[in-house]
Amino acid sequence: MNAVTTNPTPAARLEQYLHDNIPLVQHMQIQVVSYDQNGLILSAPLAANINHKLTAFGGSLAALATLACWGVLWLMLEPQPDLHIVVNESHMRYLRPVTDTLVARCELPDHTSRERFIDTLQRRRKARMQMISQVIQDEVVCAEFSGTFVAFYHTDA
Amino acid sequence: MNAVTTNPTPAARLEQYLHDNIPLVQHMQIQVVSYDQNGLILSAPLAANINHKLTAFGGSLAALATLACWGVLWLMLEPQPDLHIVVNESHMRYLRPVTDTLVARCELPDHTSRERFIDTLQRRRKARMQMISQVIQDEVVCAEFSGTFVAFYHTDA
Repeated sequence: MNAVTTNPTPAARLEQYLHDNIPLVQHMQIQVVSYDQNGLILSAPLAANINHKLTAFGGSLAALATLACWGVLWLMLEPQPDLHIVVNESHMRYLRPVTDTLVARCELPDHTSRERFIDTLQRRRKARMQMISQVIQDEVVCAEFSGTFVAFYHTDA
Repeated sequence: MNAVTTNPTPAARLEQYLHDNIPLVQHMQIQVVSYDQNGLILSAPLAANINHKLTAFGGSLAALATLACWGVLWLMLEPQPDLHIVVNESHMRYLRPVTDTLVARCELPDHTSRERFIDTLQRRRKARMQMISQVIQDEVVCAEFSGTFVAFYHTDA
């Protein structure tokens, strides 16, 4: 149980999925750095995400932090073609400017939360999860993100 | 009083400034639709900001809503080369998917708030303002943004 491995395949699949489906992810040049028992880490180069102050654009930081959380849920739940994961509400605190590569880290939810989430999703075909991620530079937290995500089954038929 | 005119020049300057300084704004293809006594309206085409569900990418919606508020402050305060405006904290509620052109609208702060903000900025060289914007499609609010922005003078000398 809690069988998250260091096998790179899920991380590579997530990166491919994001790049194939979201043009802005390509422009941001987002990479999946790692996915293991410590969580998911995404990065993006500063040059593609710079602002008028030569630091990271707030819109890029918010998008990266949101995708780190979304990505953890996607990796927890894939592959299920009629399952959707959307962000419902989010809060972002910008603490310090980011002056180098943008890095966002989302820890995995604890085992109990994951079990409850997956159980609710199976029973009600819809479940909600509070997720947290951080933007980090040189071990210092530069931005904190928290968001509510909803997973639900939807068939067009 | 409240002497904002419909002269297109400030709107065009804002659009140029954003495109010149933030590469992601170019990729999002953001346009300044209007700036007048009703506030600032920004738009971006769906194709450049689409997601895996063929609706607007949440990261694009958050960036557009943030920039609508930031843009109002920039237009209120420009041109002052040593003045910076940054987002400090933000909250976003995603209410409905956006299935066509992304449009974000930020109303101007009321006269009293603007006077107080500018007065504080002059006296303390730093001031804080709570701003609200909305993402609209067909007169329906699809997302609500609120954020705290800080303006401050900074000289490198």
